[in-house]
Amino acid sequence: MKIAICQINPIIAHLEYNYSLIIKSIKRAKEEGCSLAILPELATVGYPPKDLLEKHSFTEKNLKILKRIAEHTGGIHVLVGYVDFNRKPTGKRLINSVALIKDGRVIEKGGKRLLPTYDVFDETRYFEPADKSLVFELEGIRFGVTICEDIWNFIDHEGIPKYDIDPVEELIKERIDVLVNISASPYSIGKGQLRMEILRNIFRRYRIPCIYCNQVGGNDDLIFDGSSMVIDRKGDLILLGKEFEEDFLVWDMNKAYAPITNPWPQEEESILRALVLGTKDYVIKCGFKDVLVGLSGGIDSSLVAVIAKMALGPDKVLGVSMPSRYTSPMSRKDAKELAENLGIKFIEIPIDEIFSSYLNALRDVFKGYEEDETEENIQARIRGNILMAISNKMGSLLLTTGNKSELAVGYCTLYGDLSGGLAVISDIPKTMCYRLARYINREKEIIPENVLIKPPSAELKPDQKDQDTLPPYDILDKIIEASVVKNMAYEEIVNMGIAPEIVKDVMVRLVRNEYKRRQAPPGLKITTKAFGYGRRYPIARGGDPI
Amino acid sequence: MKIAICQINPIIAHLEYNYSLIIKSIKRAKEEGCSLAILPELATVGYPPKDLLEKHSFTEKNLKILKRIAEHTGGIHVLVGYVDFNRKPTGKRLINSVALIKDGRVIEKGGKRLLPTYDVFDETRYFEPADKSLVFELEGIRFGVTICEDIWNFIDHEGIPKYDIDPVEELIKERIDVLVNISASPYSIGKGQLRMEILRNIFRRYRIPCIYCNQVGGNDDLIFDGSSMVIDRKGDLILLGKEFEEDFLVWDMNKAYAPITNPWPQEEESILRALVLGTKDYVIKCGFKDVLVGLSGGIDSSLVAVIAKMALGPDKVLGVSMPSRYTSPMSRKDAKELAENLGIKFIEIPIDEIFSSYLNALRDVFKGYEEDETEENIQARIRGNILMAISNKMGSLLLTTGNKSELAVGYCTLYGDLSGGLAVISDIPKTMCYRLARYINREKEIIPENVLIKPPSAELKPDQKDQDTLPPYDILDKIIEASVVKNMAYEEIVNMGIAPEIVKDVMVRLVRNEYKRRQAPPGLKITTKAFGYGRRYPIARGGDPI
Repeated sequence: MKIAICQINPIIAHLEYNYSLIIKSIKRAKEEGCSLAILPELATVGYPPKDLLEKHSFTEKNLKILKRIAEHTGGIHVLVGYVDFNRKPTGKRLINSVALIKDGRVIEKGGKRLLPTYDVFDETRYFEPADKSLVFELEGIRFGVTICEDIWNFIDHEGIPKYDIDPVEELIKERIDVLVNISASPYSIGKGQLRMEILRNIFRRYRIPCIYCNQVGGNDDLIFDGSSMVIDRKGDLILLGKEFEEDFLVWDMNKAYAPITNPWPQEEESILRALVLGTKDYVIKCGFKDVLVGLSGGIDSSLVAVIAKMALGPDKVLGVSMPSRYTSPMSRKDAKELAENLGIKFIEIPIDEIFSSYLNALRDVFKGYEEDETEENIQARIRGNILMAISNKMGSLLLTTGNKSELAVGYCTLYGDLSGGLAVISDIPKTMCYRLARYINREKEIIPENVLIKPPSAELKPDQKDQDTLPPYDILDKIIEASVVKNMAYEEIVNMGIAPEIVKDVMVRLVRNEYKRRQAPPGLKITTKAFGYGRRYPIARGGDPI
Repeated sequence: MKIAICQINPIIAHLEYNYSLIIKSIKRAKEEGCSLAILPELATVGYPPKDLLEKHSFTEKNLKILKRIAEHTGGIHVLVGYVDFNRKPTGKRLINSVALIKDGRVIEKGGKRLLPTYDVFDETRYFEPADKSLVFELEGIRFGVTICEDIWNFIDHEGIPKYDIDPVEELIKERIDVLVNISASPYSIGKGQLRMEILRNIFRRYRIPCIYCNQVGGNDDLIFDGSSMVIDRKGDLILLGKEFEEDFLVWDMNKAYAPITNPWPQEEESILRALVLGTKDYVIKCGFKDVLVGLSGGIDSSLVAVIAKMALGPDKVLGVSMPSRYTSPMSRKDAKELAENLGIKFIEIPIDEIFSSYLNALRDVFKGYEEDETEENIQARIRGNILMAISNKMGSLLLTTGNKSELAVGYCTLYGDLSGGLAVISDIPKTMCYRLARYINREKEIIPENVLIKPPSAELKPDQKDQDTLPPYDILDKIIEASVVKNMAYEEIVNMGIAPEIVKDVMVRLVRNEYKRRQAPPGLKITTKAFGYGRRYPIARGGDPI
């Protein structure tokens, strides 16, 4: 028997587009002689549809799409994720469902039993857990179908079993021969490998092969990496879908495959490709063709420009340098050189006259006050205004260049450098920005070497350096990782050997700058805890940082 | 027996402050000879603590506070909401709990059984449902203690029972004499009355009195109105805590009370007081003393200035008028007159020179392009920059003035008029802005009459009127109510009798402007569906609006 694993990139709520992707996959599966085609979780609507699920009409439209998909299932079995109504009288109105379709008819339905409610997931907001998983027999083989989270409670991979039940174990009791998992599982560093380990653990315990079919594509902050897999009857990884691209895999169960060894690329490569896909899909799915980036000559904006070029091609990217009285000639040169290296469009718009006109307008009001961060912020917001004006005029999307370290401690200006439609590297700590830049330059100098060696500076006042106000980035990033990603307490972080006053200072800033992050653009998520949708903190609060 | 109902206003995460509120309440309850003092849901930490609950150390600190509270319970029973660890091996790590404390010892614990996951609530993100409610006997009377949502499944008040179990019914089986509910239930229009109806329905069915103890205060976007209540043995409302203020009620069960008739104020009064509390608490809990508001001479900014003055007093409010070449003399006059009527500080900063400096800087880049919305947005962002500069320099909080109708269709400039720390009227549709303004002016003219009668205009280009680009506000607001609040489909809204092309246009704009709302400041919520935390939509999406 041949089985097709269809790793598609749906657009949220674009039911017609998703329908076309699905029937194209089914057609190809038929052409390749497959008996079964498998599509990802919620393939009809794309994942995550969020509160669109609260519209009754949305679910109804997806059910109509399911009927139209059925019309294309002559001679083939199709497993596809969709939204169904909960037929029981109580509970949430929907089920995250999977249908087995054949010859125009839905033969069998099943649903998702474990609903994640951590980080970016809100599934109990919409869905009732399904009572049971879908089981079916095809050519003498019994398949058990789980949906995403259903396999993540297996043997307690995180230390604490999150749920009372284990859908995999229950399927084993139903004597299945092959486990299927359809997913919309977002990327984070090392996630593909983690999924493979889970599937292999299932194999080790139950000696059954596993088929894993994942969604691919960027949807707002989330990047779905694909990396669909087949673990065969020997527990080997024998098929692996492309990372960060659509793919179509066929597993011929009667054929012998060589195990795939060393399937995972270097971390920097994987992160970079994740950011490229996330950027590309956000731009395109929002209906834009071009982007612009403010180029300061620093590492962050250089990195974003490289990613933009990789995502869209050089002619779709405009770099804008906006020097002021505090911009060093070196920074102007670095910005220009980067743009030349990338072959992107480049313009320079000095901001000094505009800056002077603000200082003039505010002279009376500011009389008697010292110069402070206000004047720095004015400059950053002038740049924000110019970039947004070009974005408005040319219909191109502004990319935001702030990194995770800055965003953590508020070393950025709201409505200034935080302006833009997508924060490309807001989940990349500063030290990782350097790692990625080095990786980009591994064969030839793309980001000018000077950008990598000069001390980072916002250049908003004379002789300013980041390290005047911030702890060294390697320490800062350690504290952010401990506090934000690992939820460690102040005392625990101090026990890591970092000076208490630095830990305290960073944690106070973290708390104080919640308001900036609340108004930040969506940012591409590549760690297990990014600022944004998956991290929800109150702004108005008191007490010590915790 | 006398029972104290302590309607306190905790600060999120400020454990010491909340502790002080709690022991002050207990002290007073003792002084007034009460046998029992009741405090709201999660009184130790304030509601909603959000992802602070993911920090193990946060729960531990709240347990220490609980111990210290216990030290003050000599001679009195205290019921207090707190966070506890889930002692079972699986499931979420926490329980939303209530403790009965007496003489320094926690006598009994119970927890919340029904966990809301709709709108602004994410309780399954943190909490495992408790197995049972707390039941205890005191002076021969059996009390059953529910927490907030636990009473909201009662007899299906919304058409569909959300949950399989009804904690009230289960308590009745345990032969309780009095039902207690401790809550952190946020305000929306008519909510107090709705809660009273629920309690009265419980009385009608089971003939038991109900004590309802609610949190009060503003926490970011949420406004908790208090309005604690006692429904007595006859089903009458006999005690009602103040709306939008801390309060301390004592119910003497041996005393006769006259029923409270017509307890609920006029809708405009209630909304206005909600916004005043929400503004005041956000400013104070964020550590600010003063605020500033950009005054355009229009209805929205006028309304926000009135609310700011009511919240903080006139000397804490600065009105800033920023006229341009398109500002009418009438608008300048209206802004000034409003400030005078309110007695707030007032300054005028013309923006024309700054605007010219931008046009100058962008001349080359914009060559060959027509004038369009870009030039309008530049002006709005200049004003945003000036207001933020004053905010930065003077350490006062900028209040955002946009209304719900604008935010719905994106008739506002991101980083321009959307700038600020708190969006005071972002849940007030334009037609309601007028209603509130009329109510404010009911006895004397506070908002200049001219503001209420002139046609609304953004004044960003010559002779501009809102109605050039938007449908009449009464129609727009009907569509927003139908689509956003009631989740109605396009077809259903057209069936209300609104022209299809208008419905379509508004719904397309709703979808297209999701990105602006994502970056908007938190906005005070007064309807059942506000833009913000309780409404979660994807930005990048396709297909027709649904």
